[in-house]
Amino acid sequence: MAEEMEKEKDIDELPKNAANYQALTPLWFLDRAAAVHPRRPAVVYGTASYTWAETNRRSRLLASALVSRSIGPGCTVAVIAPNVPAVYEAHFGVPMAGAVINCVNIRLNAQTIAFLLEHSAAKVVMVDQEYFSLFEEALQIIDNKGEGSFQRPLVVVIGDENCDPKSLHDALRKGAIEYEKFLESGDPGFSWKPPKDEWQSIALGYTSGTTTSPKGVVLHHRGAYLMALSVAFVWGMNEGAIYLWSLPMFHCNGWCYTWSLAALCGTSICLRQVTARAIYSAIANFGVTHFCAAPVVLNSLINAPPSEKILPLPRTVHVMTAGAAPPPSLLSAMSEEGFRVTHTYGLTETYGPCTVCAWKPEWDMLPPEARARLHARQGVPYVSLEGLDVVNPKTMAPVPADAKTIGEIVMRGNCIMKGYLKNPEANKEAFAGGWYHSGDLGVKHPDGYIEVKDRSKDIIISGGENINSLEVESLLYEHPAVLEVSVVARPDEQWGESPCAFIALKRDVEGKDEKALSEDIIKFCRAKMPAYWLPKSFVFGPLPKTATGKVQKNVLRAKAKELGPVKRSRL
Amino acid sequence: MAEEMEKEKDIDELPKNAANYQALTPLWFLDRAAAVHPRRPAVVYGTASYTWAETNRRSRLLASALVSRSIGPGCTVAVIAPNVPAVYEAHFGVPMAGAVINCVNIRLNAQTIAFLLEHSAAKVVMVDQEYFSLFEEALQIIDNKGEGSFQRPLVVVIGDENCDPKSLHDALRKGAIEYEKFLESGDPGFSWKPPKDEWQSIALGYTSGTTTSPKGVVLHHRGAYLMALSVAFVWGMNEGAIYLWSLPMFHCNGWCYTWSLAALCGTSICLRQVTARAIYSAIANFGVTHFCAAPVVLNSLINAPPSEKILPLPRTVHVMTAGAAPPPSLLSAMSEEGFRVTHTYGLTETYGPCTVCAWKPEWDMLPPEARARLHARQGVPYVSLEGLDVVNPKTMAPVPADAKTIGEIVMRGNCIMKGYLKNPEANKEAFAGGWYHSGDLGVKHPDGYIEVKDRSKDIIISGGENINSLEVESLLYEHPAVLEVSVVARPDEQWGESPCAFIALKRDVEGKDEKALSEDIIKFCRAKMPAYWLPKSFVFGPLPKTATGKVQKNVLRAKAKELGPVKRSRL
Repeated sequence: MAEEMEKEKDIDELPKNAANYQALTPLWFLDRAAAVHPRRPAVVYGTASYTWAETNRRSRLLASALVSRSIGPGCTVAVIAPNVPAVYEAHFGVPMAGAVINCVNIRLNAQTIAFLLEHSAAKVVMVDQEYFSLFEEALQIIDNKGEGSFQRPLVVVIGDENCDPKSLHDALRKGAIEYEKFLESGDPGFSWKPPKDEWQSIALGYTSGTTTSPKGVVLHHRGAYLMALSVAFVWGMNEGAIYLWSLPMFHCNGWCYTWSLAALCGTSICLRQVTARAIYSAIANFGVTHFCAAPVVLNSLINAPPSEKILPLPRTVHVMTAGAAPPPSLLSAMSEEGFRVTHTYGLTETYGPCTVCAWKPEWDMLPPEARARLHARQGVPYVSLEGLDVVNPKTMAPVPADAKTIGEIVMRGNCIMKGYLKNPEANKEAFAGGWYHSGDLGVKHPDGYIEVKDRSKDIIISGGENINSLEVESLLYEHPAVLEVSVVARPDEQWGESPCAFIALKRDVEGKDEKALSEDIIKFCRAKMPAYWLPKSFVFGPLPKTATGKVQKNVLRAKAKELGPVKRSRL
Repeated sequence: MAEEMEKEKDIDELPKNAANYQALTPLWFLDRAAAVHPRRPAVVYGTASYTWAETNRRSRLLASALVSRSIGPGCTVAVIAPNVPAVYEAHFGVPMAGAVINCVNIRLNAQTIAFLLEHSAAKVVMVDQEYFSLFEEALQIIDNKGEGSFQRPLVVVIGDENCDPKSLHDALRKGAIEYEKFLESGDPGFSWKPPKDEWQSIALGYTSGTTTSPKGVVLHHRGAYLMALSVAFVWGMNEGAIYLWSLPMFHCNGWCYTWSLAALCGTSICLRQVTARAIYSAIANFGVTHFCAAPVVLNSLINAPPSEKILPLPRTVHVMTAGAAPPPSLLSAMSEEGFRVTHTYGLTETYGPCTVCAWKPEWDMLPPEARARLHARQGVPYVSLEGLDVVNPKTMAPVPADAKTIGEIVMRGNCIMKGYLKNPEANKEAFAGGWYHSGDLGVKHPDGYIEVKDRSKDIIISGGENINSLEVESLLYEHPAVLEVSVVARPDEQWGESPCAFIALKRDVEGKDEKALSEDIIKFCRAKMPAYWLPKSFVFGPLPKTATGKVQKNVLRAKAKELGPVKRSRL
C-alpha cells in the first residue's frame, strides 16, 4: 500500500528546472519580435519609424542606462508624455531593468502629479518636452511643502522636433538629460534577465480618483503576459496587425496592447494629437487594422465635418471601445462607415478590458435597435478572467440572471491587480470575500451576459424609486440634437431627487432656443420612459471630463446641487 | 535610509489572494465556452453533435463518475480510442477529477500497450469497443507475467454504432461498464476545482520509442494552458474556428488543440478513419477552416484519385504540418488546391509544435523553388517557447548562424515537459545544462530560422563525410515516380557506409522495371547532389511506419544491414 501511494505521487514529483520553467513576462515577446521580424516597423511616428530590431536595441539601451544609475527592482520610473515612441520603448526598457513603469496621465494638474510622484517615490521621470513645465510645477509643489522626504528624481526629457524648441532648452538648462543622450549612455549588448518571480511588479497606474486621492494600481509580469495574449486573442488580432494609438498608453499601459503588439510582431502608429482628421488619415496612409477609443472619441469621428473624413475606408477597421456603453445611434453610424466595433469593459484594476460583448453571428439578422441593445451590454469574461459574477454586495450571493436584479459586478482571476500601493484599507475593501469588487452595479441577462447599470453613487433616487442614470442617458442620445449627455441627481423638494440632464448639443443646433429644445426633448422622451425618469432640469453646454475622457459626474452633481432644489409643482 | 528601503519594497509586497491569483489550467476555457456559446456545436461526429453546454455537462459527469470511484490527483486514466467525442470529453473530464489523462496510441501492439499500462499504473482505462480485444490482449500479457503488482483497472468501454456490435457485447460480458452508463452514474452539478498548483500534472504521453522502451512524457496544467493559447495564436486561429481532427488526439493531446478549441469556442469535427475522401468531404460539408496532418497524410490527399476529391475548396483551408519537412513538390501542389500550409516542428516533450516557419509576405514574390526551400525550414520559436538555439552538444556554445554548422537543437521555456515518468536517468540527460535536448541536429540560418538536418543517428557517414539523409530524401522527392522515400546507411566495403534509398512508388509507375527506374533516378539526381550522396542501393515497396505515421528508419537500417555490405567497385 505504501508502495502504491508512492507510485501515485511519482507523476507529480518532477521538479521545475531551468529548461522547463521560465517566469512569464511580456519582455520575451520583444526578443521574439526582434528575432522573427527584425526589419518590420515596430513603431511609426510621423516621418520617424523604428524596426523591431531598433526598438529592441533602444529598449535595451534604456534598460542599461537605468541599471547603470542603480535603477532596478522596487524602483518606479514615471513617464509623463503623449503616445510617442519613447513611451513604447519604456514599456520594455523599464521592466528590463527590473523597475516599475508608471505612466502618468498628462491631463492631470500639477497638484495631482505632485501627489503621484511623491506617493510612488519616482526615482526617474521621463518627461516629454511639451509637459516639462507641468512637471516642474509639480516638483515646485512638492518643494514648497518642504517635507524633504522626496528625493529629486533623475529627469530625462524626451525631445520632439514637432514641439517648440524653447521647452527643450528650458529642460536642458534645468539639468534634465535628453532621452537620446540617455540612450547613448547605455550598452547595446545589455542582456536582460526575467524577474525572479513572475509576481514581481511591472507597472503602476493611478485611478482617476474623482472623489478621493488617486489610488496606485500595481500590476505584475505574469498578468501583463497573460493579458497581452488575451486582449489580442479575444479581439482576433492576427500576426502583423497595424494598431493606431488613439488610446493613451498611460491608460492601463494601453490596455496591455503595448505588449500584445510585440507578441503579434505588429506595428504601432503613434500620434501626438488624437483628432478625427489624424485618425482618418492614419487609416488611409498606414493600413491601420485596429484601434481603441472611448465612445466620446468615436462620437467625434462620426460627427467630424466631411472635410476631415477619408471615406470609404480602405478595409474594415476594428475598433474596440470601453468606458461607457456606446449609444445605439453611434454604433449604427460607425458600422455604416465600415468600422467594426467591439464593446468591452474593464478597469485600471483589471489591466484594461476584462469582459467583452462577444458577438454572435445570429445577431446579425436582428433589426438595428435590437442589435444595438445587445451590443451595449458588457458581456462575458476574457479568456484570462477566471471568474465574473453579479452579486448582492452584502451577502455575496449571485443575483438571478433576470436582466433586472441589480448587484455589484465582481471578478477574480489572473488579470486582477496585485493591489493598491500603500493602501491596505483600500485593498481590504477591494478584495473582500475572495473577489475583486468593481464598485460598478449591473445585472445578469438570461444568456449570462452582464450589463453595467450604474456606479452605485450615480443612481438617482426619486420618490423612493431608483432611476438608472445610464438608461436615461441612452434614451436621450436618440434625440437628434444631442451630442453628449450626462444625467445626475438634483435635489427636489417633492421627490427628494430628480434627474437633471447636462447636454452638449451638436454643432448645427448650437445657439438655438434652449427652452424650445428642452421641451422638444421632453416630448421626444415621454413615450420612451416612465414619467418619473423624465429630466426635470436641463443644462446645455460642454461637459466637464476627467483626464481619461470620462464625464465628471461628481462635478455635475455639485453643479446640480448649486442650482438648488427643484420647486414643488403640480404638473 | 531604512525608511527608503522599505518604500522601495512596498511595490512588490502585495501578496496573492483568492481574487487575484488562479492556477492556470485549460479547464477554465470549457467553463467559458459553455457560458458564452452554450448552443454552438463543440464536437461533431458523423450524425452526432454536442453543443458546448452538452460537452461541459458530459465532461463534468465524467469527472464526477471518476471522483466517486476515488480517482483523483496522481491517478492515471488511460484512453485507447480513435478521435471520437468521448476522447475529447476526457481531455476535460479527467483533469477536472484532478487525474492525469494518458491517451494511448491505438497503432501500438499489445506488448507495448501492456508496458504502458503497467508503467503508468493506469487506474481506469477508457477503451473504444473496436480496440477492446487489443486491450484485453495487453492485459493478458501483464497477467501472464504474473508479477501481481498491477491492479486490474476499471474498464469503461466506449460504444459506437458504427462498429461491429460483437466487440461491445464482448466487453460488457467481460465486466466493462459502458461509457454512457458511466456518465449517468455522475453528478451533473459536479463542481471542479482548479489544481492546487498549476505545476500539477494534466497529461501523460509516451514517445514512440524506436530503439528503447517508450518514455512517458508528463505535462502540467500551466503548460497546457499556455500552449493552448499559443498554438492558436501563432496559427492566427480565430474565435469559432472549425477544426478537423485528422491529427490523432493521442498525439500530444492533439498538439493541445483539444484545449485551444475551448478557448476559441470552436468546433471539433471528429473522424474514426482519416482518409483523403473523409477529409475532402468534411471540408465540403462542415466548413472546416483548419486541420493538422503529417506530410504523409498531405501526400495521400494530393495523390488521391479525382473521384475522392471535392474541388475547388469552398474557402482557403489552413493546414499545419510537422514531423518531417514537407517536400517542395508537395507544398506547391497543396497551394494549388487552395490549402495554406504552415510548417511547424516539435516533439511530445514540447507539448507538440514549438517552432514555426513564420511566413514573411516578401517571400510571396520568390519563385516556387526558393519559396519551398524557405518553407521547409523549422523556423522560429512559438510565443510560449522562451529559448531556442542550435548548439555544439559538447560545449553548449551556439553554432554560428551560417546555415552550415550542424549542432543540436535545444529549447527552454514553459512549453517543455515536466519530465519523463520514473526515469531519472533520461531526465538528467534531457535537461543537461539548463536546456531541453531535442536530440535533433540542425543548423541556424543567417535570418535566425533553424532547420532540422537529421536525427544524430540518421546521419550517414561515407568515407568520413557526413551525408544528411533528409537532404538526399528531399532531392529524391522531386523525381516524378517517387511517392515516399527514406534514405538510410548501408554498410559499404569501400566507404564504410553509403546511402540506401527505400522508395514507395506512385500508383502509375508501380510494377515498372525497377532497374530502369533506379537508373533513371540516379540520372535525375546526378546534377542535383554531390556524387558521394547518390544512393548506391534502391529498394522499392511500401515503407514501414511507426504508430504515429513516421517512417521507421530503425527498421530500414536493419533491412539495409541484412542486404550485406555494398561490394567494392570501380565506377
